[in-house]
Amino acid sequence: MNRINFKSIGTIHSPFKQIEDMPIQPSAAQGIQGYIELNEEYVEGLSDLDGFSHIYLIYHLHLSKSFNLKVKPFLDDQLHGVFSTRAPKRPNPIGLSVVKLMDIKHNIIKIENVDIIDDTPLLDIKPFVNEMNAVSDYRIGWLTKHLEEMKIKKSDNSFK
Amino acid sequence: MNRINFKSIGTIHSPFKQIEDMPIQPSAAQGIQGYIELNEEYVEGLSDLDGFSHIYLIYHLHLSKSFNLKVKPFLDDQLHGVFSTRAPKRPNPIGLSVVKLMDIKHNIIKIENVDIIDDTPLLDIKPFVNEMNAVSDYRIGWLTKHLEEMKIKKSDNSFK
Repeated sequence: MNRINFKSIGTIHSPFKQIEDMPIQPSAAQGIQGYIELNEEYVEGLSDLDGFSHIYLIYHLHLSKSFNLKVKPFLDDQLHGVFSTRAPKRPNPIGLSVVKLMDIKHNIIKIENVDIIDDTPLLDIKPFVNEMNAVSDYRIGWLTKHLEEMKIKKSDNSFK
Repeated sequence: MNRINFKSIGTIHSPFKQIEDMPIQPSAAQGIQGYIELNEEYVEGLSDLDGFSHIYLIYHLHLSKSFNLKVKPFLDDQLHGVFSTRAPKRPNPIGLSVVKLMDIKHNIIKIENVDIIDDTPLLDIKPFVNEMNAVSDYRIGWLTKHLEEMKIKKSDNSFK
């Protein structure tokens, strides 16, 4: 009925082999290097991507096996609705990160600012274009008071 | 084997009943209003979302039935790798937009800057937090020369 099927188009590799001690946002993962191994059949789709400094990665949060509608995010000790957080246990475990694009050689894409666990299945790559986002009257709710902390905080066991 | 299953968690409604004449980016859709009808069972997950001015919508490009690795985007007359564009015909037809959050009443979320076709299945909502993205040395490749055009351009038949 309601099922939507996607497929992994490649694998994201990073230094993070376990959930503990991962940076929880790209801003806390500056300089952390990783790479994407794109499945061979999609290599042609990478042409001209090297002109972009940053890309969106959309990926499967494959370790997330269930979800909660209220979660206590890494950055706060209060419960928040899951859609107002990036918590991995969501109704559809889809991850989204902006990473820095360093180099592309055939199907290997070197990236930086990686806040993603090793061996994560990749779903899509899109160019990051800030100008597309027509952002005005910007507010970030409960996260406002955690802005500084966001830049350094690592994850813990909360989402195991 | 390689299949990843998601489900629709709600429906995105917009004034766009057909692909022609849709704005192709949120920046070209300023002021365009729409709303999300979230499935009842997920309403609790919306708590505290109203503190955020903008949200990411991740959705199923449900009208996209096939894909091309090289595409001629609306904004250019040259072929580009699909991953360097937002073209809807992608290996996984996943859409991503930043929209302005206007109002939440129970399961109805009013949004603005909507570049999404009516009746699109919603997969996820995430808070838009610019500070998470640690963007430096910003470049946007082939799109650079289309920056102004990007703000006004509508779609055409290219992706039917």
